Amino acid sequence: MATIRHTSRMTEVPQPPHKRRAHTSTRDLERYAGLFAERTTVMRSSAMRDLMAVTARPEVISLAGGLPDTSTFPPESLAAQMSKIAAESAAAALQYGPTEGFDETKDCIVEVMAAEGMLPDPDDIVVTTGGQQAIDLVTKTLVDPGDVVICEAPTYPGAVPVFCSYQADVRQVEMDGDGMRIDLLEALLAELKAEGRRPKFIYTVPSFQNPGGVTLSLERRARLVELARRHEILVVEDNPYGMLRYEGEALPPLYQLDGGDFVIYLGTFSKILSPGIRLGWVVAPPPVLEKVVLGKGATDLCTSTLTQFFVRQYFAEGGWKRYVEDLVDLYRGRRDTMLAALAEHFPAEATWTEPEGGLFIWATLPEYIDTGDLLAKALRSDVAFVPGQAAYVDGRGKNSMRLNFSGVDDEEIREGIGRIGRVIREQVELYEALAPWSSSGAPGREAEGVPADAGREAEDVPVEDVAGNVVPLRKEANG
Amino acid sequence: MATIRHTSRMTEVPQPPHKRRAHTSTRDLERYAGLFAERTTVMRSSAMRDLMAVTARPEVISLAGGLPDTSTFPPESLAAQMSKIAAESAAAALQYGPTEGFDETKDCIVEVMAAEGMLPDPDDIVVTTGGQQAIDLVTKTLVDPGDVVICEAPTYPGAVPVFCSYQADVRQVEMDGDGMRIDLLEALLAELKAEGRRPKFIYTVPSFQNPGGVTLSLERRARLVELARRHEILVVEDNPYGMLRYEGEALPPLYQLDGGDFVIYLGTFSKILSPGIRLGWVVAPPPVLEKVVLGKGATDLCTSTLTQFFVRQYFAEGGWKRYVEDLVDLYRGRRDTMLAALAEHFPAEATWTEPEGGLFIWATLPEYIDTGDLLAKALRSDVAFVPGQAAYVDGRGKNSMRLNFSGVDDEEIREGIGRIGRVIREQVELYEALAPWSSSGAPGREAEGVPADAGREAEDVPVEDVAGNVVPLRKEANG
Repeated sequence: MATIRHTSRMTEVPQPPHKRRAHTSTRDLERYAGLFAERTTVMRSSAMRDLMAVTARPEVISLAGGLPDTSTFPPESLAAQMSKIAAESAAAALQYGPTEGFDETKDCIVEVMAAEGMLPDPDDIVVTTGGQQAIDLVTKTLVDPGDVVICEAPTYPGAVPVFCSYQADVRQVEMDGDGMRIDLLEALLAELKAEGRRPKFIYTVPSFQNPGGVTLSLERRARLVELARRHEILVVEDNPYGMLRYEGEALPPLYQLDGGDFVIYLGTFSKILSPGIRLGWVVAPPPVLEKVVLGKGATDLCTSTLTQFFVRQYFAEGGWKRYVEDLVDLYRGRRDTMLAALAEHFPAEATWTEPEGGLFIWATLPEYIDTGDLLAKALRSDVAFVPGQAAYVDGRGKNSMRLNFSGVDDEEIREGIGRIGRVIREQVELYEALAPWSSSGAPGREAEGVPADAGREAEDVPVEDVAGNVVPLRKEANG
Repeated sequence: MATIRHTSRMTEVPQPPHKRRAHTSTRDLERYAGLFAERTTVMRSSAMRDLMAVTARPEVISLAGGLPDTSTFPPESLAAQMSKIAAESAAAALQYGPTEGFDETKDCIVEVMAAEGMLPDPDDIVVTTGGQQAIDLVTKTLVDPGDVVICEAPTYPGAVPVFCSYQADVRQVEMDGDGMRIDLLEALLAELKAEGRRPKFIYTVPSFQNPGGVTLSLERRARLVELARRHEILVVEDNPYGMLRYEGEALPPLYQLDGGDFVIYLGTFSKILSPGIRLGWVVAPPPVLEKVVLGKGATDLCTSTLTQFFVRQYFAEGGWKRYVEDLVDLYRGRRDTMLAALAEHFPAEATWTEPEGGLFIWATLPEYIDTGDLLAKALRSDVAFVPGQAAYVDGRGKNSMRLNFSGVDDEEIREGIGRIGRVIREQVELYEALAPWSSSGAPGREAEGVPADAGREAEDVPVEDVAGNVVPLRKEANG
């Protein structure tokens, strides 16, 4: 925890001395271990969360987060909205609110969804503490231990810990440039049916997928919705990035195609306004929504009134779409910068996606490179990314990485990709030098073994920082 | 949902027309029913939450909530803190934060706990989305379906939905004027031991208990901590009201007596600053805290950065204790007003607690009065309270009620208690008139049957409002 503490400071200030109690012994660990719930044995952390601590060091260029650039939001707008709230409704803004959220917040949500062609009934909406809680509450409502949840391969790294915490049996369906492969999904559904198992839902990020960067084609959207209706399976459409399109034509959300019978829709203000206000939402059919609201009440009573008032006030100003357009222009440039830098600095063996929107590029390296190991090296060069394994439940993705281009400026993107390119090239050269002596000629075997060990300079790596806080999948395997 | 929607408005404004999709049919309900998780069959709502919708009508005097009086917070202070945040750190305030919370927030928490005599290690703290999430995350960490959780009888009505959502086997231990009866707790522990069952934790609100209004004596605190150590059972100490003491001497929190080995401490800024900012915390031994942080990451990634910055800024001003002192003076007066009103308006057969602090009085009526039925009548007189059953998992508490004295002013307290007193007296008179014709002379039988039916004027009650939204325990029994 020491490292996390160090980097959790808002500002650099001297720490007050605290009297600390004696540290936990092995005896203590055993004592508590018997009390933990079964789910804790499979619970894991999100890679981005773990990386956040490390990447908060100012010298680190982090391409790991999914951070929007909040420095573009006008501070005078924040001050103005809050002054109005203080003057007109301070007492209400500081008070509890309804569990399902304020109607004014729902009006803003309807406005956002309308901008993407949807017309939800406000009564079908519940306001959540960010988009993450939206995923959590839907899973809480639908999933018993052992239940099947289907998602993309790779999937949103932040969804993996949710599905694990509810002990779901997660099945991941490969994607290609047009998103989730519906033919493979159909085969999986048939297979599950033969086993007598009905999946609880299909979780998908159809637009500018996190982490894949690809978008589900119109034809596949129609097929997915049709499949859901035929099999009576719920689809959970997570759409945080839909409005961040940098080229090409907008595609209808699954919710719009389905009309809201089998598609549960998840949205958030995080990427079009601010993640620090923790405001997201769920749109679901009434029987499902009722359970989601029950879950919400038990979980945190209600979403922050103060931040809901802020959104209402900000939307009343009428400039929210203009702000999103500015973000689109900014991020488009950063995407292009990253694509150019990848072409310049990554080896010929690497491939990557070219997203039409969103925040992420997914890069795939030669099979013998383990991006978990690579991250340890990259951090020594003060640059970070999310290792691909974080986006899988089964250990796949070892030679892939997620790269974010929204959170840092063009210069940092170029420098960051340059640094990652250098550590990759070192790995490639090392592999090429060592490959002839490898015990096996099979690339698969080599990928698992030789280069990772060969490339590790064990003695001079600060293990506490790197193994403890940086390579989350390994850390989490041990609790 | 219609009623909730109506009363979830921040302000009275005309509604924009929305195209609504066709309403859910019975067929649809069946369709989704097969997809719900097992836990949803036992999940229930918190009575206060359901009542919130109804009591938002301005003509209703609500003694039902647990609302602090946020109108006492100076609006100019809210404006000033937010202007500083906007000027100095808008981008950071709108960005994601660390899952465990900012160190500066933890410094404020340490200050609050120090004011009650505790010295926690900041590394043992995780900042949560309100005190409710603190209960949820601890339960998530420790409880498997069927596990025993021990709490007071009655217990915090908001904890009941949490324990139910994790399918806990909740055992409630009676209280008297000195709080939880430790002799009964010991007997229960012995009984459980004989069955080979180890409770996962003992949940308690030792100071100014919600809803009981009683405080655990010093001698019992020592015994409870000693019991926890001897049996190696965790105690979850929920202390939202500790600083709101109106008379008598402060008692040491269990956390202080134990030193933090077996006591997990839950706190919140809701009652000393604002519930609308949704900021609470957990202090736990490192092995437990690690799991709580994992759960937190999966649940909502992190607590609102904006509201954490607000607390930091507010605490930096240095006036937070003075504000709490003002609250103490205000609430002491309101408590006295309510006690006087109860003596004036409640029948001789009624009893109630006389709390030394906190927000609640617990009143017990003659056995034949069902406070669920009484609430329906009370609402027709535009006054609300929480029926006692909400504080039990097993249907007890039928003739009790929780009354809040912090959220409304003296005049409303007098008027509200007067109105409740009138509907009680009507019930008493009706009972006395009908009792001779009752089919059984046993008071217990009568309490279950006659007066509740006899007192009901079924035809002119607006069933949608009252049965559907007001009497939560009945509503929840059906979903």
